[in-house]
Amino acid sequence: MVKYPERLDRTFAALVDPTRRAMLARLEREGSASVSELARPFAIKLPAVMKHLDVRDGARLITRSKVGRTVTVRLSPGPMREAMDWLRRYERFWSASLDRLAAYAESKEAEMREKDR
Amino acid sequence: MVKYPERLDRTFAALVDPTRRAMLARLEREGSASVSELARPFAIKLPAVMKHLDVRDGARLITRSKVGRTVTVRLSPGPMREAMDWLRRYERFWSASLDRLAAYAESKEAEMREKDR
Repeated sequence: MVKYPERLDRTFAALVDPTRRAMLARLEREGSASVSELARPFAIKLPAVMKHLDVRDGARLITRSKVGRTVTVRLSPGPMREAMDWLRRYERFWSASLDRLAAYAESKEAEMREKDR
Repeated sequence: MVKYPERLDRTFAALVDPTRRAMLARLEREGSASVSELARPFAIKLPAVMKHLDVRDGARLITRSKVGRTVTVRLSPGPMREAMDWLRRYERFWSASLDRLAAYAESKEAEMREKDR
C-alpha cells in the first residue's frame, strides 16, 4: 500500500506532461478507450503511448483490461480526487486574496468620490 | 509569457515533492515567511531550501521580496488555481461514478428484498 504523500507525488508527477493530461481528459469525456484509439490524435507511436500509460498506471490514475488483443483503459478517480482535495485548501487563500482586492478597490472608489465633491 | 499548458506542467512538477508541498501549506497558513523560518522544520540546509524555492519560483507559485538581509516569501495563488480548475472537471466524473455505484447498490438491495418475499 503506497502512503498518502507518496501517492500525491506520483499523481502530480503523472500530471506534468501535456500529452498525458490530454489522454486523461479524453478518458474523462469518453469513459474508456482502447490504447490504439488513445494514440491516434498524437504524433507518437504505440510504445510511447504505452509508456505514458505506464506512468499513469504507477500513479493508479487508470485501470486496464484486456479482451483478446484489445487493451481498454479507464480512468480511476481516487488519486486525482486526492490531488484536488490537497489543492482545495488553497481556495480559502484565493478567496481571501480576492476579498482584500475588492475591499481595496472599494476604498479607492470612495476616495475618488471624496475628491470629486 | 509562459503558455497555459507549460504553466500547468510547471505547477504540477513543483507539487511533486512533499517538502515543497509542506512549505506551500505553511505559506498558506501563515501568509508569509522568511527563508530561514521555512527551513527550520526540515532537516535540510538553507541552500536546499533555496533550491526548492527556485523550482516554485519558476512555476510562479511564490513571490519573494528582500528587506535588508531577510528574504520574505509569499504564496502566489494564480498557478495553483489553474491546476485546481484543470482537476475540477473530473469532479463530474467522480460524482457520476458515485451515482452509478449508488444505483447499483439500490438495485442489489431491491433484488434482495424480492428474494426475501
